[in-house]
Amino acid sequence: MRTVDLITKKRDGGELTEAEIRYLIQGYTDGSIPDYQMSALAMAIFFRGMTPEERASLTMAMVDSGETIDLGGIAGVKVDKHSTGGVGDTTTLVLAPLVASVGVPVAKMSGRGLGHTGGTIDKLESIPGFHVEIGSDEFIELVNRNGLAVIGQSDRLTPADKKLYGLRDVTGTVNSIPLIASSIMSKKIASGADAIVLDVKTGDGAFMKEMSEAEELAACMVDIGSRVGRKTVAVLSDMSQPLGNAIGNALEVKEAIDTLRGRGPADLTELCLTLGSHMAVLAGVATDREEARVMLERAIESGEALEKFKAFLTAQGGDASVVDEPERLPAAKRLIEVPARESGYVAAIAAERMGLAAMLLGAGRATKESRIDLAVGIVLRKKIGDPVQAGEPLATVHANEIGAEEAIARIYEAITVRPEPVRPPALVVGEVHADA
Amino acid sequence: MRTVDLITKKRDGGELTEAEIRYLIQGYTDGSIPDYQMSALAMAIFFRGMTPEERASLTMAMVDSGETIDLGGIAGVKVDKHSTGGVGDTTTLVLAPLVASVGVPVAKMSGRGLGHTGGTIDKLESIPGFHVEIGSDEFIELVNRNGLAVIGQSDRLTPADKKLYGLRDVTGTVNSIPLIASSIMSKKIASGADAIVLDVKTGDGAFMKEMSEAEELAACMVDIGSRVGRKTVAVLSDMSQPLGNAIGNALEVKEAIDTLRGRGPADLTELCLTLGSHMAVLAGVATDREEARVMLERAIESGEALEKFKAFLTAQGGDASVVDEPERLPAAKRLIEVPARESGYVAAIAAERMGLAAMLLGAGRATKESRIDLAVGIVLRKKIGDPVQAGEPLATVHANEIGAEEAIARIYEAITVRPEPVRPPALVVGEVHADA
Repeated sequence: MRTVDLITKKRDGGELTEAEIRYLIQGYTDGSIPDYQMSALAMAIFFRGMTPEERASLTMAMVDSGETIDLGGIAGVKVDKHSTGGVGDTTTLVLAPLVASVGVPVAKMSGRGLGHTGGTIDKLESIPGFHVEIGSDEFIELVNRNGLAVIGQSDRLTPADKKLYGLRDVTGTVNSIPLIASSIMSKKIASGADAIVLDVKTGDGAFMKEMSEAEELAACMVDIGSRVGRKTVAVLSDMSQPLGNAIGNALEVKEAIDTLRGRGPADLTELCLTLGSHMAVLAGVATDREEARVMLERAIESGEALEKFKAFLTAQGGDASVVDEPERLPAAKRLIEVPARESGYVAAIAAERMGLAAMLLGAGRATKESRIDLAVGIVLRKKIGDPVQAGEPLATVHANEIGAEEAIARIYEAITVRPEPVRPPALVVGEVHADA
Repeated sequence: MRTVDLITKKRDGGELTEAEIRYLIQGYTDGSIPDYQMSALAMAIFFRGMTPEERASLTMAMVDSGETIDLGGIAGVKVDKHSTGGVGDTTTLVLAPLVASVGVPVAKMSGRGLGHTGGTIDKLESIPGFHVEIGSDEFIELVNRNGLAVIGQSDRLTPADKKLYGLRDVTGTVNSIPLIASSIMSKKIASGADAIVLDVKTGDGAFMKEMSEAEELAACMVDIGSRVGRKTVAVLSDMSQPLGNAIGNALEVKEAIDTLRGRGPADLTELCLTLGSHMAVLAGVATDREEARVMLERAIESGEALEKFKAFLTAQGGDASVVDEPERLPAAKRLIEVPARESGYVAAIAAERMGLAAMLLGAGRATKESRIDLAVGIVLRKKIGDPVQAGEPLATVHANEIGAEEAIARIYEAITVRPEPVRPPALVVGEVHADA
């Protein structure tokens, strides 16, 4: 096989066989195929797309490029969830203990990541003592004992995906739906998922700004899942405004605690119940989504979800007293209200700009080396559709030394108030299931 | 400027500015832009094409990536000719002395090249003593004295083009008309051409197999020429069968001598008169093509063209006695006739396969390191449209130690004989001039 012939085949609209895709991914991983051939191939894929068979082959070739996690020591169906990013997305923090409390085993591998705020692990590290440095045996044992554990991402999973993603980032080939889909699915499968619930965001604050793209990505991932034997469901959710109210690390932990207590923002609660219901059904702990939803609502009402969260924190060294005393979480020195300049209705909260405002305060990482400030961030006081009086706060900025003024300027740019009433956007805007 | 943003701009159908193209080509030449970004850009160009302005900017950016030849020391308009490859193409050997003999100054930079036979320099080196290792001052002086000199290609011209061509070759991005056009034009301009006559081949033995592609390439190069102030004319010529009769190095030299003497194959003679007429007009030594053609025909009849060839060979160390005694040229040990197996009319001579046959005999280079056998090759005895009797020779194989049997098998595959009469193909199938 000659790499240039395979590039040409794809360039001219041909379909690569499984053997050809494995040759390419193995060669790229071991360095025998250079970056310059892989980037030309990625650009050809950008233009030509990939067939369903090609996407599934690519996904599994990337899974097989490195180690895979064996969750066979955990009883039950291991269901993983993946959100395609967004602003103020606290779903993992809520969902993990919530579904664990109804019997779905949660063996979660999570990251730090770049972006407006830290990743799930950064957020959890705002809880004093909490850590993810646990061995894989302890990880399995904790899931079996508590139903829930979180571990840091291993560098040894899907090395082909890591290398290819880095290359795509500098060659204008990130925005290819088959490449995005196989990247996400390969990581979930290598992490040991038997079934996968996808939360595909759409709208201003999402990677997929257009609904049609989000639908295509969702369909693509669900199709890959069913081809490689992992039941997969995708929920399309709105990210035209930030999810929930908090954007920031400790602020999101507090919001997650509120939500597990049944006092969280309506949209975050609703999305967690929707995603959690799918997870419970895929795990086989509920027969249908209605039953699952009732179980989850009861777990919140009874306090079981919150107890599960506490047990999880304690097991990984965290100080679970923060759950009842959230003032023990890192707190910013200054709280600044951002008052509305006019009366009317909130018509838009540009999510990406709000994320940028949080980043200016120090809540996120621009590069791998950046340190993040766990305390800072923004809490929205109004969401789209809410009436507001001039002078009433639109948001509260939680700031330390840097960025408060710039963040406030961004917040004013992000939030539009109009005189006429505005309908709040629908939260769950679609679902994609595998064909029966 | 960020390279990834420029790749994305082109990927999404945008037009790169001259400054952006210069940034890319300079960065690629000096190594600050890596191969993997340039190959992604080349693939994006493959799919999106380039605007006329982009092609002209790319051409001049590649010219300016290295040294350029200053032919200012030579009086008159320096007209260069370029053929886009093909099989048995002896035009340069004929044209250079022919147009020089009517007063067109010919300062030719030529190469060895890969392919079915050697390049022009390899062919000329079959003349004992001939060499191209002359300094640039001597080169200019020889053109001023004799009207004609040939020098080897300098490695210092268009380094960006060399680097990019090498990359395109292994990334499936050779077949992009704007990239081919700017590559050819940049080399001609860097070599000091004031005006350019292009011989774009089309048909089985050509790089551009389809007439429409050949036309597009021709139009693209003529447009670049007029945008950068070099008068350019393109002739589209048929390569559905080999040009002339000889395929091989010394064999083509002998055929060139025959043609300069007025006894060459009709098609080769006709193409040289057509291209030469354009060159004479562009150089200003004739007012129109009819006048130019008469001058060239007279130069052949009078023996001036042949005398010019002899003077040129002598000036560069060659033994000009080969012109009158061609038996002094390298000769193969075995001459093998390839007889027709049936009677009828020659309907096809697949040029590429004939080239492959010559290569099997050792006439060409597969890699830069290959040694070529100057003596071997094939002489066609019939061309398309010719009647042939069973047993009559279709071709003569000139072989040394290797490849005779395989070459004969390829020749039989290449030549089709049909019972019904066949019209010979037109030789000159189109012309492209700049708009007035």
